[in-house]
Amino acid sequence: MRTTVNIPADIASTVRRALNEDLGTGDLTARLLPEQGAGTAQVSCREHAVLCGAPWFDEVFRQLDQRVRVDWQNRDGDPIEPGQTVCTLSGPAPALLSGERTALNFLQLLSGTASVTREYVSLIAHTQTRLLDTRKTLPGLRSAQKYAVLCGGGVNHRMGLYDAILIKENHLRASGSISAALAQAKATQRRIEIEVEDETQLEEALQGGADVVMLDNFSLEQVRRAVRLNNGRARLEISGGVDKQALAELAETGVDYISSGALTKHVQAVDFSMLMTEHTI
Amino acid sequence: MRTTVNIPADIASTVRRALNEDLGTGDLTARLLPEQGAGTAQVSCREHAVLCGAPWFDEVFRQLDQRVRVDWQNRDGDPIEPGQTVCTLSGPAPALLSGERTALNFLQLLSGTASVTREYVSLIAHTQTRLLDTRKTLPGLRSAQKYAVLCGGGVNHRMGLYDAILIKENHLRASGSISAALAQAKATQRRIEIEVEDETQLEEALQGGADVVMLDNFSLEQVRRAVRLNNGRARLEISGGVDKQALAELAETGVDYISSGALTKHVQAVDFSMLMTEHTI
Amino acid sequence: MRTTVNIPADIASTVRRALNEDLGTGDLTARLLPEQGAGTAQVSCREHAVLCGAPWFDEVFRQLDQRVRVDWQNRDGDPIEPGQTVCTLSGPAPALLSGERTALNFLQLLSGTASVTREYVSLIAHTQTRLLDTRKTLPGLRSAQKYAVLCGGGVNHRMGLYDAILIKENHLRASGSISAALAQAKATQRRIEIEVEDETQLEEALQGGADVVMLDNFSLEQVRRAVRLNNGRARLEISGGVDKQALAELAETGVDYISSGALTKHVQAVDFSMLMTEHTI
Amino acid sequence: MRTTVNIPADIASTVRRALNEDLGTGDLTARLLPEQGAGTAQVSCREHAVLCGAPWFDEVFRQLDQRVRVDWQNRDGDPIEPGQTVCTLSGPAPALLSGERTALNFLQLLSGTASVTREYVSLIAHTQTRLLDTRKTLPGLRSAQKYAVLCGGGVNHRMGLYDAILIKENHLRASGSISAALAQAKATQRRIEIEVEDETQLEEALQGGADVVMLDNFSLEQVRRAVRLNNGRARLEISGGVDKQALAELAETGVDYISSGALTKHVQAVDFSMLMTEHTI
Amino acid sequence: MRTTVNIPADIASTVRRALNEDLGTGDLTARLLPEQGAGTAQVSCREHAVLCGAPWFDEVFRQLDQRVRVDWQNRDGDPIEPGQTVCTLSGPAPALLSGERTALNFLQLLSGTASVTREYVSLIAHTQTRLLDTRKTLPGLRSAQKYAVLCGGGVNHRMGLYDAILIKENHLRASGSISAALAQAKATQRRIEIEVEDETQLEEALQGGADVVMLDNFSLEQVRRAVRLNNGRARLEISGGVDKQALAELAETGVDYISSGALTKHVQAVDFSMLMTEHTI
Amino acid sequence: MRTTVNIPADIASTVRRALNEDLGTGDLTARLLPEQGAGTAQVSCREHAVLCGAPWFDEVFRQLDQRVRVDWQNRDGDPIEPGQTVCTLSGPAPALLSGERTALNFLQLLSGTASVTREYVSLIAHTQTRLLDTRKTLPGLRSAQKYAVLCGGGVNHRMGLYDAILIKENHLRASGSISAALAQAKATQRRIEIEVEDETQLEEALQGGADVVMLDNFSLEQVRRAVRLNNGRARLEISGGVDKQALAELAETGVDYISSGALTKHVQAVDFSMLMTEHTI
Repeated sequence: MRTTVNIPADIASTVRRALNEDLGTGDLTARLLPEQGAGTAQVSCREHAVLCGAPWFDEVFRQLDQRVRVDWQNRDGDPIEPGQTVCTLSGPAPALLSGERTALNFLQLLSGTASVTREYVSLIAHTQTRLLDTRKTLPGLRSAQKYAVLCGGGVNHRMGLYDAILIKENHLRASGSISAALAQAKATQRRIEIEVEDETQLEEALQGGADVVMLDNFSLEQVRRAVRLNNGRARLEISGGVDKQALAELAETGVDYISSGALTKHVQAVDFSMLMTEHTI
Repeated sequence: MRTTVNIPADIASTVRRALNEDLGTGDLTARLLPEQGAGTAQVSCREHAVLCGAPWFDEVFRQLDQRVRVDWQNRDGDPIEPGQTVCTLSGPAPALLSGERTALNFLQLLSGTASVTREYVSLIAHTQTRLLDTRKTLPGLRSAQKYAVLCGGGVNHRMGLYDAILIKENHLRASGSISAALAQAKATQRRIEIEVEDETQLEEALQGGADVVMLDNFSLEQVRRAVRLNNGRARLEISGGVDKQALAELAETGVDYISSGALTKHVQAVDFSMLMTEHTI
Repeated sequence: MRTTVNIPADIASTVRRALNEDLGTGDLTARLLPEQGAGTAQVSCREHAVLCGAPWFDEVFRQLDQRVRVDWQNRDGDPIEPGQTVCTLSGPAPALLSGERTALNFLQLLSGTASVTREYVSLIAHTQTRLLDTRKTLPGLRSAQKYAVLCGGGVNHRMGLYDAILIKENHLRASGSISAALAQAKATQRRIEIEVEDETQLEEALQGGADVVMLDNFSLEQVRRAVRLNNGRARLEISGGVDKQALAELAETGVDYISSGALTKHVQAVDFSMLMTEHTI
Repeated sequence: MRTTVNIPADIASTVRRALNEDLGTGDLTARLLPEQGAGTAQVSCREHAVLCGAPWFDEVFRQLDQRVRVDWQNRDGDPIEPGQTVCTLSGPAPALLSGERTALNFLQLLSGTASVTREYVSLIAHTQTRLLDTRKTLPGLRSAQKYAVLCGGGVNHRMGLYDAILIKENHLRASGSISAALAQAKATQRRIEIEVEDETQLEEALQGGADVVMLDNFSLEQVRRAVRLNNGRARLEISGGVDKQALAELAETGVDYISSGALTKHVQAVDFSMLMTEHTI
Repeated sequence: MRTTVNIPADIASTVRRALNEDLGTGDLTARLLPEQGAGTAQVSCREHAVLCGAPWFDEVFRQLDQRVRVDWQNRDGDPIEPGQTVCTLSGPAPALLSGERTALNFLQLLSGTASVTREYVSLIAHTQTRLLDTRKTLPGLRSAQKYAVLCGGGVNHRMGLYDAILIKENHLRASGSISAALAQAKATQRRIEIEVEDETQLEEALQGGADVVMLDNFSLEQVRRAVRLNNGRARLEISGGVDKQALAELAETGVDYISSGALTKHVQAVDFSMLMTEHTI
Repeated sequence: MRTTVNIPADIASTVRRALNEDLGTGDLTARLLPEQGAGTAQVSCREHAVLCGAPWFDEVFRQLDQRVRVDWQNRDGDPIEPGQTVCTLSGPAPALLSGERTALNFLQLLSGTASVTREYVSLIAHTQTRLLDTRKTLPGLRSAQKYAVLCGGGVNHRMGLYDAILIKENHLRASGSISAALAQAKATQRRIEIEVEDETQLEEALQGGADVVMLDNFSLEQVRRAVRLNNGRARLEISGGVDKQALAELAETGVDYISSGALTKHVQAVDFSMLMTEHTI
């Protein structure tokens, strides 16, 4: 673990797990190489993208062989161009070869998430609305993906069930009513968010003192009315199957947040490759 | 761990990790519910897809509360229709709610991978060519994704660096020549695969006794010539940026394998939802 | 892991760690006993206390030997009297003996925390003020102690640095000013708490939109003025070396929360003992 | 793990567990700070105490960020005065802030245990009697607390059930008789301790060859007679609810050991605080 | 973990580690079998031996598939004949096949250790001398091997460095003298063993109050003199390269213990095999 | 983890496990020594052997205290003579003493395995036949033992059930026939090995396209006929109770591999010792 600011605390175990699944009992092909060789390699990108994943990339080589040195030309969050070299590595050749795929797997995934986030954010940049992620993430990779959302300019919704209260339709069925649920939630020292289906529920939620209200599958017109009804009392969040086309219009209604599962449940990996440029025995 | 056939051995730890990242110190919202309630829920799909992920889904609830019962209407590998109910759950309501997202995250990811694999496989089904996956996977989820590829009808390439030898261009630079590399590999008791860039290298690989030869970025015409040159001596694999359109034509050349990173590095999650249908206190 | 409601998710690993440190490579004394003996034992308390720790107690024996049966006469949160039997155990005698100390260590600790919390809560029960815990906990036992605070009638402050923002004096020095710090915090989707040293800072915090303001070492009179100044804009929390005597007066000022490190950093273990009542070979 | 002498071998995992419970997915407040700042801080104590916990304190910052430097003015076991600075830290400001509470939680706990041990030891310092701890410890913190007892001048009784034989009343019921139990224990290569309830049992234990005899709830007068009866044959230990007042008189009887659960089951945390003294960006 | 008596507490993790190294990402060959088949198998032995390892064998199948049932015809410690069936298994055929090798690896190793111990013990059975093991064990398998020594009729010396004091030549060089080392050891509450090179050191050790004295490389004649010199003051242990031939004569001198590294550092695996006897689909 | 070439990836966890079982809560005897002493020690061998285990030996001291320095006079795989010093250590004396036994336990085991392998290999060195190991290994130590086999000049068979297909008699009973089993195996992308009992099965296996055929308990004469029958179509492996005497004759038949469980299931530990040569306080 290094400085805890911004970088998820579980990076070492995430990388260890990834290395274990690739290396297992050892790299059979690298064993065929002369042990004492050193090499240099460059990682370049073949697309327009937002760079993300450098700490995981670094950690892969740190765990493999501390003699590997990685020099970054870019930082996480930087826009990159096709053909651009993002970093240069040097160190023992077997370690470069053994770590290549695992390191690139992190880079291509997280840059993919950061890039799609950046694209969405740009569509609503002319408004005050902020783009949120969700809990629809790849199992075991949530903290990494949430970091990528930050790099792309988004804002993190709750990390999990443990760090915020969000009362959804199924919870309401079990509790009886919105006001009963909110009354019980008030006894905790937590920000309270509640999902509502229509304006009647919205008003009930506002009177019950919800901090944030999630408007579930509201039409554009319903959202506009909800913003007026709310009149600044709580923060409003739009959720549900939001497509790219509708983003700007929804944001222009003045809602505080739009949350999108698509940011993290789909992945369009960015195409990176590592090329050995020098090798000395 | 239950029967080891077909289902990856690391399923318990993969699920534990996913539950930990979602539950952390406990589900704050579920705590607001009455403890003794029981419930029933249905999981349905909103798309055409291939179902995959049932063992992970089951394991989520097994780890949360062994009283939850999951009844599947379908098995992994089954085609499913929009609106189809794939399973029904019953058990303590808090456990159903706490496990919902983690369980669905596995199902949407793995069904996505199985579905795209099935689509690719159908495009080459009229040939003898088999579709292989690669090591371009989501970190920590490789064994699950490789299982999904099997469910979709694909064949697994090596699991990692530890279970097969694949000599690539970077390795050749370090070893000197194809024949030197192959000679050393022969001393192991392993199937040997080698990547070649042109026909000269192909011939050298065949004479060196490679079991499989990977044709790197060969044109359609080059592949056809390679198949003739090989004349059944080794198995041939096509790799590199293979797009859907080219699949059929490439398969019709008579190559043994086509491998595709796109199967596992990109994810188009399938849309599943869980709905509580009954709740009794 | 069983139902996640109310009971910390890390109970199995906490108990495993405790059993490991006591059992190590095995109970040397229990090895001297005949293997096939069964026994019955009663756990009783020698003090007035609030019972807490049953899930950890159960887990100890579940991990040791699933044939042990524990029947509880009381539930966590119940008041208990000196001499009262709280539970009866039956099962293999070696398991009862090997688990006794580890199980009691959880019970005596957590009942101690629940009991002191109950005592503090009773002193402010005539007001609307709620008693909060802090992060001054025993390393590795935080989730268990926070559960005990709930059993005693208290409310949990944040679990750790990861689930809420609390800007303290040291953070302010690094950020420059209260309004700068709050502006940056606003960009997250989190409840924001800030610590203030005097009324000027309080006003600045209120105008910056803090959700909760912690009044650090305010005198009784200063607290009263702060409540008037706040006038319901944010929630107010009193922190710092609050002694039992001052609790009622502070609560009567109308502050929302009083937080106390003493609840969890000091421990006055409750005196429980386990007595074998029957033993049959 | 560093040098194994005196410092428990599980320090790294104990600290990792504590950091995990506080940091989880990252310090939300520290993220608001400028990343590049460096700082200096001082840890001081507000009470008379015996310092204990430096290795755990160091390990917290070593795991967080290896650039943090801690300079100690005192060593574990040193007496400290109110207002005394015990150490000075310098390094990246976010790491200092993120580690503060976890590091202090170890220091306040372990100094508390060392301080009460020192106080008890001083009451019997004019005799040959030694003060022992017990297995009544905080779950998961036993090795740390046992280290603190050493720092306070006490002697460690067995670490757990695995490293010494101690036959108690419940074991005797299962074995039949003291002489039968001792005969079986003799077949091991272990020091044998046995608990007795009266002089008859004491004599039986001595004749059976016990190495140590624990006098359970003997009155002062009974202890005196036991010492005479023993006449140096075995070592004698007094156990049970020993209060501070009785310690000196009991020790003056000439018993070898007095053991006290209060040393480790109760905690009176010592009041330490960390203050940032300089901060440069 | 089941009953802790006699069976090492780390059995589950030892077996998990062994299964992981054999199964990794799954049994490729078992995947070729029909999933629903059930089978019956018998484990038989081809040599004269002492059976040992049943709990590890059981745990292998418990972790693989809880439907496997193992019925033992013998218990650990029983003598077995060539051709004898020691247990019968029934359950899902893939689980039987996948667990076979790992389960047999435990049985062949631990029965080997128990058998050689039984042979040594029989050579000194006409004396009071007991046979001890040492810390010369297979890394990671110590608790299992020490259990096997018990099954063979031996006695366990210390488990590790943590549960007994044994002052050896190298320690003496660092401490200055035997009496200085013993004085310091006396301040602990531990049995003290010390290694001596000659009679002068033996006398010094006895006067310093050692509980056990290890005679390092004493000749038979020196051992006889040492027994007379000791005259029952401490227990005496013979260590060093003791061969089978010399065992009886050494034991007849009246020493209390003979310790032998050969019991656990060498392994002569016992030949067991598992045969499928029935298979139904 | 350091460079992954040749050295198993699980070395750190193997060593951690071994240190934990020896050190537990700390070295009681080393605690009696002055903390600040430094020392020098030499490790020498008392037998003719092949050195193996240096990376594990190094890792023991790296984990204990990074100030210990180990200088090797030999490399793994080197032949060593009685009396030869293989390495010299210097560093804090308590760390040298605490790590001694664990480090030597690795060295004596792995050198034992390398030595017996070298002996077997030398008996067939005049042929093209290669010596293979098996899965009959010490639980938890397989990757280390397989590394030792490489150091001795052997070749590794599969690491476990996960990295190669080997169809044995029990599998055939479940699948019906050799050709059915092979047909299904062909659908994977794996080298396929199959065990046969007689010449009829051998011919069936060859026609089914097996890559390697294992001749189970074939007589010398049967092996000779099998080699002629095979005529280079597949690779042939001899398995089963091969004794040293028969090795040369079997190899001279021209089979490709001879596999031997004896290499790794039996252990004849090599006798190493560590002597402190200098000690300064």
